[in-house]
Amino acid sequence: MNIPEHMLNLYDYEKASQNTLPPSANDYYRSGSMDEYTLADNMTAFQRIKFLPRVLNDVSNVITTTNLGGKTISSPLIISPTALLGMAHPEGELAVARAASAANNIMICSTMANTPIEDVTASNDSSTWFQLYVYKDKEATLTLIERAKNAGCKAIVITVDAPFLGQRERDVRNQFQLPEHLHMSNLHALGHSKLPDKVGHSGLAHYFEELINKSLTWRDISWLKQHADLPIYLKGILHPKDAQLAIEHGVDGIIVSNHGGRQLDGSIASINALPAISKAVNKQIPIILDGGIRRGSDILKALALGAQCVGIGRPVIWGLSHSGQHGVENILNILQSELKLAMALAGCANISEISADLIAEL
Amino acid sequence: MNIPEHMLNLYDYEKASQNTLPPSANDYYRSGSMDEYTLADNMTAFQRIKFLPRVLNDVSNVITTTNLGGKTISSPLIISPTALLGMAHPEGELAVARAASAANNIMICSTMANTPIEDVTASNDSSTWFQLYVYKDKEATLTLIERAKNAGCKAIVITVDAPFLGQRERDVRNQFQLPEHLHMSNLHALGHSKLPDKVGHSGLAHYFEELINKSLTWRDISWLKQHADLPIYLKGILHPKDAQLAIEHGVDGIIVSNHGGRQLDGSIASINALPAISKAVNKQIPIILDGGIRRGSDILKALALGAQCVGIGRPVIWGLSHSGQHGVENILNILQSELKLAMALAGCANISEISADLIAEL
Amino acid sequence: MNIPEHMLNLYDYEKASQNTLPPSANDYYRSGSMDEYTLADNMTAFQRIKFLPRVLNDVSNVITTTNLGGKTISSPLIISPTALLGMAHPEGELAVARAASAANNIMICSTMANTPIEDVTASNDSSTWFQLYVYKDKEATLTLIERAKNAGCKAIVITVDAPFLGQRERDVRNQFQLPEHLHMSNLHALGHSKLPDKVGHSGLAHYFEELINKSLTWRDISWLKQHADLPIYLKGILHPKDAQLAIEHGVDGIIVSNHGGRQLDGSIASINALPAISKAVNKQIPIILDGGIRRGSDILKALALGAQCVGIGRPVIWGLSHSGQHGVENILNILQSELKLAMALAGCANISEISADLIAEL
Amino acid sequence: MNIPEHMLNLYDYEKASQNTLPPSANDYYRSGSMDEYTLADNMTAFQRIKFLPRVLNDVSNVITTTNLGGKTISSPLIISPTALLGMAHPEGELAVARAASAANNIMICSTMANTPIEDVTASNDSSTWFQLYVYKDKEATLTLIERAKNAGCKAIVITVDAPFLGQRERDVRNQFQLPEHLHMSNLHALGHSKLPDKVGHSGLAHYFEELINKSLTWRDISWLKQHADLPIYLKGILHPKDAQLAIEHGVDGIIVSNHGGRQLDGSIASINALPAISKAVNKQIPIILDGGIRRGSDILKALALGAQCVGIGRPVIWGLSHSGQHGVENILNILQSELKLAMALAGCANISEISADLIAEL
Repeated sequence: MNIPEHMLNLYDYEKASQNTLPPSANDYYRSGSMDEYTLADNMTAFQRIKFLPRVLNDVSNVITTTNLGGKTISSPLIISPTALLGMAHPEGELAVARAASAANNIMICSTMANTPIEDVTASNDSSTWFQLYVYKDKEATLTLIERAKNAGCKAIVITVDAPFLGQRERDVRNQFQLPEHLHMSNLHALGHSKLPDKVGHSGLAHYFEELINKSLTWRDISWLKQHADLPIYLKGILHPKDAQLAIEHGVDGIIVSNHGGRQLDGSIASINALPAISKAVNKQIPIILDGGIRRGSDILKALALGAQCVGIGRPVIWGLSHSGQHGVENILNILQSELKLAMALAGCANISEISADLIAEL
Repeated sequence: MNIPEHMLNLYDYEKASQNTLPPSANDYYRSGSMDEYTLADNMTAFQRIKFLPRVLNDVSNVITTTNLGGKTISSPLIISPTALLGMAHPEGELAVARAASAANNIMICSTMANTPIEDVTASNDSSTWFQLYVYKDKEATLTLIERAKNAGCKAIVITVDAPFLGQRERDVRNQFQLPEHLHMSNLHALGHSKLPDKVGHSGLAHYFEELINKSLTWRDISWLKQHADLPIYLKGILHPKDAQLAIEHGVDGIIVSNHGGRQLDGSIASINALPAISKAVNKQIPIILDGGIRRGSDILKALALGAQCVGIGRPVIWGLSHSGQHGVENILNILQSELKLAMALAGCANISEISADLIAEL
Repeated sequence: MNIPEHMLNLYDYEKASQNTLPPSANDYYRSGSMDEYTLADNMTAFQRIKFLPRVLNDVSNVITTTNLGGKTISSPLIISPTALLGMAHPEGELAVARAASAANNIMICSTMANTPIEDVTASNDSSTWFQLYVYKDKEATLTLIERAKNAGCKAIVITVDAPFLGQRERDVRNQFQLPEHLHMSNLHALGHSKLPDKVGHSGLAHYFEELINKSLTWRDISWLKQHADLPIYLKGILHPKDAQLAIEHGVDGIIVSNHGGRQLDGSIASINALPAISKAVNKQIPIILDGGIRRGSDILKALALGAQCVGIGRPVIWGLSHSGQHGVENILNILQSELKLAMALAGCANISEISADLIAEL
Repeated sequence: MNIPEHMLNLYDYEKASQNTLPPSANDYYRSGSMDEYTLADNMTAFQRIKFLPRVLNDVSNVITTTNLGGKTISSPLIISPTALLGMAHPEGELAVARAASAANNIMICSTMANTPIEDVTASNDSSTWFQLYVYKDKEATLTLIERAKNAGCKAIVITVDAPFLGQRERDVRNQFQLPEHLHMSNLHALGHSKLPDKVGHSGLAHYFEELINKSLTWRDISWLKQHADLPIYLKGILHPKDAQLAIEHGVDGIIVSNHGGRQLDGSIASINALPAISKAVNKQIPIILDGGIRRGSDILKALALGAQCVGIGRPVIWGLSHSGQHGVENILNILQSELKLAMALAGCANISEISADLIAEL
């Protein structure tokens, strides 16, 4: 049989990506921490969740648009921050920003992008949010926020699950380094744009250990919110008590995430953390979920269990490494098409018709 | 060891069928949608259910006959609708109709049969039901109903889980098409008897998208019931609330089904959906279950959990592709024999002695 | 490494047996019915049960003797009935009877033995029970009981889970037959000592279908008890309601068994059926459990969950086929040693110190 | 790709150890008893436990020091007793003692060490505890205690789960023997320093059967405590009732352990036994847990579920066999680093901030 090579689903892109990325970059992107149990569980947890679809609802016009932070987006699917996209494609973050723009969607750009935030926002007519790693150096942190705001970013996403970098053993064995020609451009003026060399283990882990603030507390969140004068999202919430604390500290939204299984190995799958958090939040602020989204039906499951929206990380990289902006657009289109079909087959004509009633109890 | 090739059980027919069907037809028949999780779960869910058999009941004369919709059938096992049987055997639906007739059983004939419904009913002295896909074109739909009624069909089975076709990736990769010599004969006069060609993906999915009614609601069910003047069954119910709505809308019976794992992937295994639906229906209308029936003991499990009867789809195709009418008869005979034996070994002399008491709690 | 071939555990005997038995006999002994799910589950169910062992009890003198039906046996482990032992070893049932005798233990001899019951009892100074298949022919049945009683059998074990033989597909494919030189000697005078030939499937299944009583009910149990004038045990109870009925009908004991996974496939693992039955029986009559015992720790689990004693079937055949009486003695010795060690390590000095308190809730 | 051979984690040391240890010693160290279900479950049980990490706590200075029995140790991780370390490395117990000393940690030295306890304590500036097997010979036992006390041991750890040795089938098949040049030096004067030869099975099992006290009861514990005049810990508690009895008998601490899966196979995984014991103990005495610790995150799980501290056994042997004292230090350092990182990523700055709140319910 001569099967033409379609790129039908995200797994097709994943396979292609494994074959084209340089080994060290591929390892960097796909790794989880330690034994990668959480990495695997992020996916298998979705498989254990079963639908009770509804029928005989008019689904002739399935609408996936939704509102996130005051903006209408084309589907409840945004781009989670991932660092160092220059390793995946020469156009790196720019290609992703343009793809997000084409899809009328939000890209959360990483502090550790290989492209300055100003260039990224300029490439995205839609909406860019800025992911912030808080540096020990307070001035550096404020400079980053200031630049993001001036560049037109619509929100700051503070990563709160990474005071240290999780131990990603592939990176340690590879003595992971940024390729010579790449910089973390947002950090150039601050003198932190390169990873330390010859540290005998992961250069990125060493960088984190040296520069990232490990004493960040809830008090600092209030302080950052004040200085940012932008909506603040916290990324990396898994405990319902932290979700409650986020609300008490005036945070504008949270991202339920285990950092793609790259921080504390053994952490709960993000989708399994969602129900308790959703109950604790009780619709007071939006919940975004990332980790393990590979199909439109995964998005439907996440929304049914209380997320307003999901984020994707690795799949964006697969699309990017395959065919740049076009590949990322394809990834977004595939997921949106799959979500649309899943909604139709579950009897939901729009996002507001999605509820926990669609999910079978185990 | 020289083991003779018996055709002992349905798996023997499945294996034979994989070897004889043209690859594209084989893929069409065996596929589930997307990652095929529901397809697999339909089967493994049965394996997780355990019997607590009874003993010392007189089982010298095990009777499997049962009543479905006023008709006495030889066993609680009918033929679920499957499209395009002409790909499996030259005699296609006719062979299946004759086999169902020989077994004094019901065949549900698909809208998308390769044989006109009139020829099918003429070949079945027993009972033919007509599976209806509701077209956007109201007249086309009414014409189909009218023809089915005039042909002598005893009931209309409206498929309610397929406003769109599930994404069956094998068909997409194969750019699935109907072989040149085959038509969907019931749709000839309506001009919808061929699948569109060269659409770059599944011709059947495209056909569905173009022609099938996506705005069907409960109101239409009442309207269809009125026009059909025949008992109406809904096929594709998985949610207990929809089972209740079916009763409220005067439906005559439901088929608990996830379309053989071919529509929304991630849907609950049909046998796992049954207990809640059975409770909601509370014996007010008959419940038929399909999805994953491979052994007579699966039928016994389904009946114990509240089904009046089960349907089989793929196994009919395996028998048909192996040896036409005779093969289908063998499939029905094997399942009936296995059911009889399972009933005897569980201490049930007839269908009414089967109850939930036979099933162990996990 | 030159590891000497010890026969340390039952698995060593199983492996040896697979290599020495004629294929058809091997298939006959090892088969379960249909897909062999219950066969497998009998074993894996034990693995899911976990001990909470006790410490600091004096275990310098672990005593495994127990009382069953008024007789003191060396350990809570008897020999379940298995048919046609002549296929495994020329001395067949005689070798097993002598091994049971040497171990001061009980052998339940099958109706379908290849040795007359009188010869079996003559070889066993300890205790022989007679397993009874109830024939349609009432006189034949009474003759069997009479002979068993006269031969000195101490109890009658009526198999109640086999009105028909379960479908053992290996036997069907092999067209299983008794070797020319073997007879079912207890049935010689009754003219039922050979299996029918050339039936195109399992000769034994055909024999059952022809001759075994399928209308046996609880009423017959009372009648049989009266005629036997011996303690009556029922073998093949899995449902707690049947255990209660057994007590109400004056039965002297029950064997919780799924016939080694050879009857209704999909039946609960026997050890999983035990807790509910144990609760229903509430120590009014002894409970024997068989199915899946492979280690002394399995015996300990069964006793902790309410059995007075366990039976073993296939392991006896493995020992027999390996080295006749000596092999069976080894099997009994291995299990008794393992039980003794398991009791000591669980802090139990004798059988009465074993309780459900040793088992962890899941 | 030329990946340098880092020794990153405990699995790297395990693999190295499999390749360098003599087969019989390797089998001795890695074996569990019987089918090794408990051995495997000790590890997989940890994988089933999931974290709900906390965020935004100041973790700039994670402190792993904790108090055990009045001593401050560098991390909640001590060295469980393992016998016969001379087979792993010429420096055996001395190397381990020095590594424990370097880490300011506690080594529990085995009765069956290949080095006299006086030499072990002399090599450890930190703290040595003495693991005691209670011999039938009361004088021998008292002599051992006396020597341990005089040598400066800070506590006596009585192993209570080994009245007999578990059946380790590899050792039986290997007819396990101590190499010619090694002795159990603590038992030299007592005439018990060599294993019996040519017993046809495990020499160690035979030794246990001959010499170890099987009638040890709670009364003896009080007697031993009196004579030892040292804190007494009991090793091998899995049942909450035994934990309560330990408190009632004035024991100073317990080690929740299934002896590395080497005693009663089928015993609960030690981490699964912990919650009920932790509840029963209610912080009255310290709980140490061993069995299956392979990552720093396992330590965090154990502490969250109620342990004060964990012990490691086999990993010490892997480090020892790889590179003597240095290898053991590496093992301790790796686990401490991993624990530190896990604590930071779970939002815990010190041991007292670890609680059951970090663990997700299943």
